[in-house]
Amino acid sequence: MGFSFGKEFRVTIFGESHGKVIGAVVDGCPAGLRLEERDIQCELERRRPGRGLVSGRGEDDVVHILSGVSYGKTNGGPILMLIHNKDLDSTWYERNRYIPRPGHADYTAFVKYGGHNDNRGGGFFSGRMTAGFVMAGSIAKKVLAKMGVRILAHMIQINGIKAREGLSDEEILENVAGSPVYCADRTASELMVSEIRKLIEEGDSTGGVIECRVSGLPVGLGEPIFDPVEGVLAHALFSIPGVKAVEFGSGFGLCSMRGSQSNDELYLQNGRVVTKTNHSGGVLGGITNGMPLIFRVGIKPTPSIKKRQRSVDLRTMEETEIEVVGRHDPCVAIRAVPVVECVTAFCLLDLMIMAKMIPKVMGEEDGSKGS
Amino acid sequence: MGFSFGKEFRVTIFGESHGKVIGAVVDGCPAGLRLEERDIQCELERRRPGRGLVSGRGEDDVVHILSGVSYGKTNGGPILMLIHNKDLDSTWYERNRYIPRPGHADYTAFVKYGGHNDNRGGGFFSGRMTAGFVMAGSIAKKVLAKMGVRILAHMIQINGIKAREGLSDEEILENVAGSPVYCADRTASELMVSEIRKLIEEGDSTGGVIECRVSGLPVGLGEPIFDPVEGVLAHALFSIPGVKAVEFGSGFGLCSMRGSQSNDELYLQNGRVVTKTNHSGGVLGGITNGMPLIFRVGIKPTPSIKKRQRSVDLRTMEETEIEVVGRHDPCVAIRAVPVVECVTAFCLLDLMIMAKMIPKVMGEEDGSKGS
Amino acid sequence: MGFSFGKEFRVTIFGESHGKVIGAVVDGCPAGLRLEERDIQCELERRRPGRGLVSGRGEDDVVHILSGVSYGKTNGGPILMLIHNKDLDSTWYERNRYIPRPGHADYTAFVKYGGHNDNRGGGFFSGRMTAGFVMAGSIAKKVLAKMGVRILAHMIQINGIKAREGLSDEEILENVAGSPVYCADRTASELMVSEIRKLIEEGDSTGGVIECRVSGLPVGLGEPIFDPVEGVLAHALFSIPGVKAVEFGSGFGLCSMRGSQSNDELYLQNGRVVTKTNHSGGVLGGITNGMPLIFRVGIKPTPSIKKRQRSVDLRTMEETEIEVVGRHDPCVAIRAVPVVECVTAFCLLDLMIMAKMIPKVMGEEDGSKGS
Amino acid sequence: MGFSFGKEFRVTIFGESHGKVIGAVVDGCPAGLRLEERDIQCELERRRPGRGLVSGRGEDDVVHILSGVSYGKTNGGPILMLIHNKDLDSTWYERNRYIPRPGHADYTAFVKYGGHNDNRGGGFFSGRMTAGFVMAGSIAKKVLAKMGVRILAHMIQINGIKAREGLSDEEILENVAGSPVYCADRTASELMVSEIRKLIEEGDSTGGVIECRVSGLPVGLGEPIFDPVEGVLAHALFSIPGVKAVEFGSGFGLCSMRGSQSNDELYLQNGRVVTKTNHSGGVLGGITNGMPLIFRVGIKPTPSIKKRQRSVDLRTMEETEIEVVGRHDPCVAIRAVPVVECVTAFCLLDLMIMAKMIPKVMGEEDGSKGS
Repeated sequence: MGFSFGKEFRVTIFGESHGKVIGAVVDGCPAGLRLEERDIQCELERRRPGRGLVSGRGEDDVVHILSGVSYGKTNGGPILMLIHNKDLDSTWYERNRYIPRPGHADYTAFVKYGGHNDNRGGGFFSGRMTAGFVMAGSIAKKVLAKMGVRILAHMIQINGIKAREGLSDEEILENVAGSPVYCADRTASELMVSEIRKLIEEGDSTGGVIECRVSGLPVGLGEPIFDPVEGVLAHALFSIPGVKAVEFGSGFGLCSMRGSQSNDELYLQNGRVVTKTNHSGGVLGGITNGMPLIFRVGIKPTPSIKKRQRSVDLRTMEETEIEVVGRHDPCVAIRAVPVVECVTAFCLLDLMIMAKMIPKVMGEEDGSKGS
Repeated sequence: MGFSFGKEFRVTIFGESHGKVIGAVVDGCPAGLRLEERDIQCELERRRPGRGLVSGRGEDDVVHILSGVSYGKTNGGPILMLIHNKDLDSTWYERNRYIPRPGHADYTAFVKYGGHNDNRGGGFFSGRMTAGFVMAGSIAKKVLAKMGVRILAHMIQINGIKAREGLSDEEILENVAGSPVYCADRTASELMVSEIRKLIEEGDSTGGVIECRVSGLPVGLGEPIFDPVEGVLAHALFSIPGVKAVEFGSGFGLCSMRGSQSNDELYLQNGRVVTKTNHSGGVLGGITNGMPLIFRVGIKPTPSIKKRQRSVDLRTMEETEIEVVGRHDPCVAIRAVPVVECVTAFCLLDLMIMAKMIPKVMGEEDGSKGS
Repeated sequence: MGFSFGKEFRVTIFGESHGKVIGAVVDGCPAGLRLEERDIQCELERRRPGRGLVSGRGEDDVVHILSGVSYGKTNGGPILMLIHNKDLDSTWYERNRYIPRPGHADYTAFVKYGGHNDNRGGGFFSGRMTAGFVMAGSIAKKVLAKMGVRILAHMIQINGIKAREGLSDEEILENVAGSPVYCADRTASELMVSEIRKLIEEGDSTGGVIECRVSGLPVGLGEPIFDPVEGVLAHALFSIPGVKAVEFGSGFGLCSMRGSQSNDELYLQNGRVVTKTNHSGGVLGGITNGMPLIFRVGIKPTPSIKKRQRSVDLRTMEETEIEVVGRHDPCVAIRAVPVVECVTAFCLLDLMIMAKMIPKVMGEEDGSKGS
Repeated sequence: MGFSFGKEFRVTIFGESHGKVIGAVVDGCPAGLRLEERDIQCELERRRPGRGLVSGRGEDDVVHILSGVSYGKTNGGPILMLIHNKDLDSTWYERNRYIPRPGHADYTAFVKYGGHNDNRGGGFFSGRMTAGFVMAGSIAKKVLAKMGVRILAHMIQINGIKAREGLSDEEILENVAGSPVYCADRTASELMVSEIRKLIEEGDSTGGVIECRVSGLPVGLGEPIFDPVEGVLAHALFSIPGVKAVEFGSGFGLCSMRGSQSNDELYLQNGRVVTKTNHSGGVLGGITNGMPLIFRVGIKPTPSIKKRQRSVDLRTMEETEIEVVGRHDPCVAIRAVPVVECVTAFCLLDLMIMAKMIPKVMGEEDGSKGS
């Protein structure tokens, strides 16, 4: 259990890294949304390994929509999307089935599933599962865009190298696509790239911090007490492999502020209630306040490294060593940037539907209901 | 919606700060658990304001168990617990009903509930709601204790003053109860107390960081992909008023580590698989690995301060100012320490039941089934 | 687990027959609904035993609303309602704790809860639990009434005595309140009353069939595939103690019809699509079609009878006999009539909220948002 | 929303009658269960049209398992199963898109989905969706069989022709497979077949009643108050297209019994508590009592008939007529027999997991964990 997320826009993920397919089913998408495979494909491209810095697994994945769309529009039923996996060499994994890789889910999965888990490429713990997140998120993004909501993630730190503070949304929009590490600060981006190249040479890896900004959200999202925006979003974000930390607004920084500093005072701007500072990150009492929703996600270093590491043979229960082979991302945080956007999208859409802010039927914009 | 948490051990919270009662209903507690009001009362005492540093609201709350317990044991039905609120003077709140306090949920609640929210004392956004969290958590703690699980929260930072690193569980256990700020480092505790006193004088407030350590958890808790231990716990923790950041293991610190450093290598100890480092905080792939579960929670400064602040009158839609009166906690993070333990308890118990690790019926220990 | 129903209008029931209280918490009621205790009390009166035909337990229950209502209107938070139980003599139940009464849940509860269930008065299996259903349902009815939805239940059969067919809604409305058995056919009603009196004398009991008609529902309620109106309603209705059968429209009668007879052909009436027959009971493909929703519920005879019955002593595991004492309803179906209405109400309201047909905030009718 | 069922063994259905695929995803199947495509295929064959009496749509469907199985066993992840639809001629449906067929979901779906529903072959309201039910149910049946639970459905009535009462499980097992209508009473079976042939000639249709018997269930299934066995099963059964009535044990018949007759007295048999009669159908207080679970399902006549029927053109909003062409089942109840078994299977397995009666990991029987 646990492969589904959402109460009203419900995403179910399936597949294994070395299995036949990987994908998602989405239940609860409003009917009438124009949807084509290329809407999803273009988001998948952003997440794709490559960009010169990452693993060689040539994932030229092609997504197929197999249900839920008729006459080019969503029909109210579940949308099944999948990509077929290439045949991959699983020999190494099969030989090391009983020797868990440090930092991976191998050991915990082995115990949880009584040894029946698929360890090849990490099975369903593989970062490749996030392709399913992107499929679901790309639909959610399309709905949100129609509601005026824009989600923007960018890299703000890799292995201690930080993007400068104070980047505007415009700068991010302009620079992020051009950076191989999705960093909007060009100087920092170059340093990050050098750092990554060095790590590749050394067969080591590192982590990163991603910031995400959401603009255009209405006031009133989030369901107190137990479904505050922060809690629901964090829940979803921690489902991304490698995420170990989430903070909203000024986050941990708030803990060394005074209330007189951290409180965002209220003003009027064009008849709308706004704040000048945004230490709360756009959420008060778990409910959006109409200011940009801002949060940061901390991702741990890729656990697959070239160095020999200590482990235990679970069959013989003896200590041993393991050397992970194959080409891997030196920094999974990079590919996580579009994934964070997509997870944010399906999570926020769910909250918007819960808050009754999404029409039951979309697509009236073009006047062609049902034609 | 949103006042319930948990799939198998389901907690529902109700009440308002200035309403008649505050409390919780718990559905899914195994039958046969010995349970008395004092089991809950003693946890409530820990959360109670006082300790010389906090608000003057004399909450000598007495909890009542109204259902779910027969012959001194849980009977399999929902457990209703509540405390009656004292009559409180709501005049200030009624006068300021349309002027949201900065940093509070007043504005967002006003919009979300169309002005029908109860703003007196913050209504159901009050920190007082956490009494319900403690009621539910104290039952969960009792079940967990029988399973050998121990939860230990302590304060590690207030307004930049940090407890020293490397505190052992034993030190924490020994020192935490004696510290008015729940800090196990005596030197830091004294500094924190001075800081709080200074803030009281100045009518200002601050935030804090709480660390929580859970020992005795079995391997295998957490339900991939979307119910990882981190995600489910963070979901619950962000429901505590004021929480704005959550990190597991080395958290954001992992983002500037290398994989060769952050990976926890595996060893054998008395036939059990263990790690020497614990950067993962006891969770891999969203599943507990048998090492201590460790996380930190960042709590923002109490928004109620004595200084005059800018706000907006929502009836006239004009800018105005507000001065919050009454005595309030200068640092809600302090009272949040036992709350974090209790939320962790009901959340982990839920995950343990999901993972089929809790017997359907408890209490056989004393051989007196049903007598 | 299992004491909650509903996804958006979520009802949680608690209490025991001989415990301290009995009641309900409702999460998800729109804010701004005027709500007083007498709104609930008057529905409770309808369900109350008495009417000359039923058990002597003088349940002069007074309901208390303890949360969720501020300034006379719902505030968006959970509504806690309860009634305090009178002290009752539990001696008989305590003496017979290990001897299950035939037809009751005593045996199954004993096994399920490891002997920790409360058997006094049936514990939480008591028909008295339905007071909680009525509390929740009375709120739902009030919301539905504002949306133009009317729910009307009446008795159509007791121990083989049937009301005549073809009763109009008007006849039912006019006659049902005057009948001690809620039967709108006066002749049948008298026969039923005589039958009940005879059963009282003989210390025996019987069952009944209740019909329920709902008018004013919009087209589009029900969520295919797994939440059709019939499925969701039946789920809720079978939660009423004693219900063993549910059928919609022409129900089992459809099984011996031909399609050419059972299909309801479509016509126009004042620009609305209607059918002349209503064999489907107002539901096609699990979705309401705008015609009256019609269903029937079959309730078994009250299991408490005065005759000596065979049973088993669960402590000694020997066959034995039991004679149930006390005054009981000869026909629980009678009191179930208002309960069926209330369960239908909270179940349909939940479906209406799911279908986005209920405003987020009620009460604008009087123009006094938040005053 | 609504395409998923179950809390712990969660079934999600997708596809459209004339779309690309039809199938199911199952989340929550215990790891370690041997599972092959033919396990599912053989159940699909039972449901397949044919048997001489039904629609000509040659559904030689081949099921594919695309995830969740590794090395021949379930791996703990979601199991995706699908069949590819043949290309079908949709011309008739496209021409009649705005003219709802009486007795079908065409009208209600059109309104609910704003005209974006796929009406071709009924879209996701097609009886063909039940192939997904069978896929999920065939896995559940396999798990249940290992726990000693056997599910047996058979036809007891078609258009008024009834199987004789008192059929033993053995007779049913022996005769049901040989009957083209799944009726275990050979005489009745022949009459039913003649009746169906007559209806085919006349272009008309009819309904039927299916009885289902489940043996081997433990005591203790079902979660009071709102998840009684009857309620949860009825919820699932009403999801089968055409089901309009469900009754347990003596069902509606109980309503004209006396309590002294309907109460099932308790006895001992080989140290087990049993009843001689089984009017309750194996469920008391919503919880299984260890006796066979028995219920009946009433299915309406196939709405597709050859006769000209009245309808409304939803585009022009004028009354019109419609003549449904194509070959259709004269009695969908026949094909529903194996579907009822499969729905019962996944529903009961879910309840068994909820009641903690299913091991977390299966397949230890052959001693080859993970090999």
